Amino acid sequence: MDTWLDSLITETPQQGFELAITLSRRGVKYTQPDPEVLKELRAHYANSAEGLTAASHVVALNFQTVAAANNYWRK
Amino acid sequence: MDTWLDSLITETPQQGFELAITLSRRGVKYTQPDPEVLKELRAHYANSAEGLTAASHVVALNFQTVAAANNYWRK
Amino acid sequence: MDTWLDSLITETPQQGFELAITLSRRGVKYTQPDPEVLKELRAHYANSAEGLTAASHVVALNFQTVAAANNYWRK
Amino acid sequence: MDTWLDSLITETPQQGFELAITLSRRGVKYTQPDPEVLKELRAHYANSAEGLTAASHVVALNFQTVAAANNYWRK
Amino acid sequence: MDTWLDSLITETPQQGFELAITLSRRGVKYTQPDPEVLKELRAHYANSAEGLTAASHVVALNFQTVAAANNYWRK
Amino acid sequence: MDTWLDSLITETPQQGFELAITLSRRGVKYTQPDPEVLKELRAHYANSAEGLTAASHVVALNFQTVAAANNYWRK
Repeated sequence: MDTWLDSLITETPQQGFELAITLSRRGVKYTQPDPEVLKELRAHYANSAEGLTAASHVVALNFQTVAAANNYWRK
Repeated sequence: MDTWLDSLITETPQQGFELAITLSRRGVKYTQPDPEVLKELRAHYANSAEGLTAASHVVALNFQTVAAANNYWRK
Repeated sequence: MDTWLDSLITETPQQGFELAITLSRRGVKYTQPDPEVLKELRAHYANSAEGLTAASHVVALNFQTVAAANNYWRK
Repeated sequence: MDTWLDSLITETPQQGFELAITLSRRGVKYTQPDPEVLKELRAHYANSAEGLTAASHVVALNFQTVAAANNYWRK
Repeated sequence: MDTWLDSLITETPQQGFELAITLSRRGVKYTQPDPEVLKELRAHYANSAEGLTAASHVVALNFQTVAAANNYWRK
Repeated sequence: MDTWLDSLITETPQQGFELAITLSRRGVKYTQPDPEVLKELRAHYANSAEGLTAASHVVALNFQTVAAANNYWRK
């Protein structure tokens, strides 16, 4: 697989949150690498309250990791 | 996307809790950005015990992050 | 919204656990503020093994936060 | 409610694990205090793979808290 | 109950992972101690993708605890 | 069982993420060691939005552990 994750450090919390989203999607992609299948499934869960909450749940976990890595962007 | 997250630091725990709610909703919005779809889905899960508990679950995870960032607002 | 969370610090672990319950309920209330709807839903999940385990799950997460805030009430 | 949680400190990891079980059950009891209802529901989920895994899940979270409180019983 | 957990310290990460599996199973056993029932339920969830993922989920949580206890086996 | 986990330390965050995937799969394999059954189940959940999100969830938890072990690969 190509290099997609060089560092957990980001400049801002928002960039960290967006990295958490990337991590969550990569967690899916390692199991199901076919982009066509992923596209079809996303259409499904993006219209399901349960699917969206579950997605936000995984993002929250990955954001915990990224935020800790960045010492919570404390100044 | 616009800037919506500048800092994890809040003055009070309650503001931190409310930030956790924002983070939870943003986790959803990155997957489903259409406000009409979100409005319709919210009407659904806001009347479901399972949906509400799942929402509170994600808030709890994000509150862990925000609370740690603020050193738990210890004085 | 009124002020409901001034501090995460409690005198005893049990008070901390009860604060974790408050946090869990507030996580629900921000999504569904109508007390009538909440009352009806509670009657439902309070009689469901899955609903009760899910509630205890959220309490456990919030208790992690409150316990860390209080340095685990170590003497 | 009576006093049921004086301290998170235990002598051994096993006692800590058993305290985690107590915390998990108390998380349920605050939502559903009726012992008759709890007894009936336990008969149900104690015979369900999903129910038992969910129970073990909550115990794992509370054990994280108790283990951290005890500095993992390192000698 | 007999003594089954003397320490969270293990020599290697793999032994720590196996201890996390033990903790996960014990979390089940405290709720359902009957070995015959457990055997039957295991036959069920060991053939279910959802059941296996849920089991791996609990192991991941317990491994977090064991890994922290061992300072991640850093040398 | 053979030795499969010598260390939680990796050179890069991406290798750490891939180790988290290995840990998640091993968590399954300890419960269901039959490769034929696993292959069949994977075909199923790799085409299910819920199954993939649940898999990504477990990866996120194991990545928390691996990232902490590596001090988040901070330089």
